[in-house]
Amino acid sequence: MTAAIIDGKAFAGEIRERVANQVARLKEMDIVPGLAVVLVGDDPASEIYVRNKNRQTEEAGMASFEHRLGEDTEEQELVELVRRLNADPQVHGILVQLPLPDHIDENLVINAIDPAKDVDGFHVINAGRLATGQSAMVPCTPLGCLLMLRDRLGDLSGREAVVIGRSNIVGKPMAQLLLRENCTVTVCHSRTRDIADVVRRGEIVVAAVGRRDFVPADWIRRGATVIDVGINRIDAPEKGEGKTRLVGDVQFDAVKDVADAITPVPGGVGPMTIACLLANTVTACCLSHGLPAPQDLTV
Amino acid sequence: MTAAIIDGKAFAGEIRERVANQVARLKEMDIVPGLAVVLVGDDPASEIYVRNKNRQTEEAGMASFEHRLGEDTEEQELVELVRRLNADPQVHGILVQLPLPDHIDENLVINAIDPAKDVDGFHVINAGRLATGQSAMVPCTPLGCLLMLRDRLGDLSGREAVVIGRSNIVGKPMAQLLLRENCTVTVCHSRTRDIADVVRRGEIVVAAVGRRDFVPADWIRRGATVIDVGINRIDAPEKGEGKTRLVGDVQFDAVKDVADAITPVPGGVGPMTIACLLANTVTACCLSHGLPAPQDLTV
Ligand SMILES: NC(=O)c1ccc[n+]([C@@H]2O[C@H](COP(=O)([O-])OP(=O)(O)OC[C@H]3O[C@@H](n4cnc5c(N)ncnc54)[C@H](OP(=O)(O)O)[C@@H]3O)[C@@H](O)[C@H]2O)c1
Ligand SMILES: NC(=O)c1ccc[n+]([C@@H]2O[C@H](COP(=O)([O-])OP(=O)(O)OC[C@H]3O[C@@H](n4cnc5c(N)ncnc54)[C@H](OP(=O)(O)O)[C@@H]3O)[C@@H](O)[C@H]2O)c1
Repeated sequence: MTAAIIDGKAFAGEIRERVANQVARLKEMDIVPGLAVVLVGDDPASEIYVRNKNRQTEEAGMASFEHRLGEDTEEQELVELVRRLNADPQVHGILVQLPLPDHIDENLVINAIDPAKDVDGFHVINAGRLATGQSAMVPCTPLGCLLMLRDRLGDLSGREAVVIGRSNIVGKPMAQLLLRENCTVTVCHSRTRDIADVVRRGEIVVAAVGRRDFVPADWIRRGATVIDVGINRIDAPEKGEGKTRLVGDVQFDAVKDVADAITPVPGGVGPMTIACLLANTVTACCLSHGLPAPQDLTV
Repeated sequence: MTAAIIDGKAFAGEIRERVANQVARLKEMDIVPGLAVVLVGDDPASEIYVRNKNRQTEEAGMASFEHRLGEDTEEQELVELVRRLNADPQVHGILVQLPLPDHIDENLVINAIDPAKDVDGFHVINAGRLATGQSAMVPCTPLGCLLMLRDRLGDLSGREAVVIGRSNIVGKPMAQLLLRENCTVTVCHSRTRDIADVVRRGEIVVAAVGRRDFVPADWIRRGATVIDVGINRIDAPEKGEGKTRLVGDVQFDAVKDVADAITPVPGGVGPMTIACLLANTVTACCLSHGLPAPQDLTV
């Protein structure tokens, strides 16, 4: 058996196209969806993310507002910027790039965002809505994973899903989304005993750990669908001295002989995350104008 | 093997005693914790709950405020009452007894409660805090279950827990609490396939389904701890014609030969729920006065 490789890059392209179509439709009503991205400090990885987000936002025909603040920005200053963006009718989505410098309380800043503009879905009200089955802005990475699973498997109802990792931005919202889809959901983490046996139950396995080679082939049930969220940078001397490359949490080459389908890293979850961010922004824009949420983006 | 019967009634008594001690301590500071209970309509089961809550609130030395509104109360009227209670400094906890009549939007009413006074833990902000691992007002029934599990098992870390049911008031917050305790948590529900096999994995099983005799002995792993949340009223002709009695979701007599410990119905989860409500109210009162949350109540 050789697993199908789920092409997140191509699928993300499709979603961005649907986003662009919605944007065009909105422009006919003189509405331009706008995404504001706030970057504090100069973390190089964050820089790259932000640049990608801005570029793709503009390519979809949306307005992109970039706000860069120095590493030593006061918490209060950042909160005031967020408040101004909350009040700005041209801004429909606000994303504060994490991590923030240590002297700033991330929860406080995130919870200052208007929940209706919280396109990352990290505001406590959106977390609560997701947890209680109300309609919510859903975090982009698990949303992207869900879209790939639905695209591959159709109805997820009744399937055994195992999520490895329980962070607020991936593992926990992923578990809630899978529960909403009527999966039987198990969450594992660093304190899980006999994790191999637990993961082996999964018809769906989502790995969001942040450790290269973490999931070997003998943890994967034959025929499972494996979503690899991990992004780990490793040395790649084969590309030249000092070069690096990205790998996931799953032992891709071995697991693809056991799984029915698997996402690659790069080209799997990563591109879907940004596509879902754009989709969430268009949705937020529609809702703010009293228009229904577009049905073909992420639902 | 015959399981230990977890005496929720006695344990709840202990918690109420600790609550009463805290109340006495607060009275020395001229603070009287107050709980407001709002009952709309005249559902007989709700009447009984509310009467019990009020009685136990007063027995613990706290102030109890009862508000009864007619079945045809307007949503807006109820929301205004909630707002007045939010503003009332004598009221530290607000409980709106569910279910509400069909013409009233429950979420809207619950979310009108000040999250700091939301001693039922149903406000979307408290749900979000629990879901993201922040300190929260935690729903009383799963909190009571957790206290019994901790009392029986000590550290829950690494244990396999299976929760049957995924309601917002029991199953889902229970799963989140067990995850916070570092259990490996599986949630099942009506769409779960091979539920017997899934439940059989549980070193801890919490049943919150609402169906008598739902969990038979051969679903339970030898030595498991079983918490039966279900409350089902059945005919009890042995008590006389037309008489009824309460049973849980678990086949108690058979399961007690397999489990290490089990909660009875009645006398298990039920009394713990009210004790936790009182504890949450004292906690809310302390926090509202800038005092630390008492450490010996529910933590
Ligand atoms: N593709 C994307 O767009 C995208 C987006 C976000 C994140 N990511 C990547 O996804 C990965 C996870 O991100 P995150 O933010 O969720 O990370 P995180 O906050 O560090 O969470 C990692 C989770 O993995 C668990 N874990 C760690 N060691 C483990 C072990 N030995 N066995 C079992 N579980 C273990 C941790 O358990 P404890 O809770 O017990 O510590 C924790 O819940 C990272 O590689 C990140 O770069 C990718
Ligand atoms: N002791 C107390 O103080 C206390 C407090 C609250 C509740 N309770 C009792 O606890 C029970 C549950 O209450 P609740 O409010 O959580 O009830 P609920 O909202 O009706 O939820 C019941 C859950 O059980 C699941 N379920 C139903 N049939 C099932 C089946 N055949 N197989 C597997 N799962 C099934 C449902 O799954 P779906 O989601 O797929 O429909 C649902 O998630 C009731 O008996 C209630 O009276 C007791």
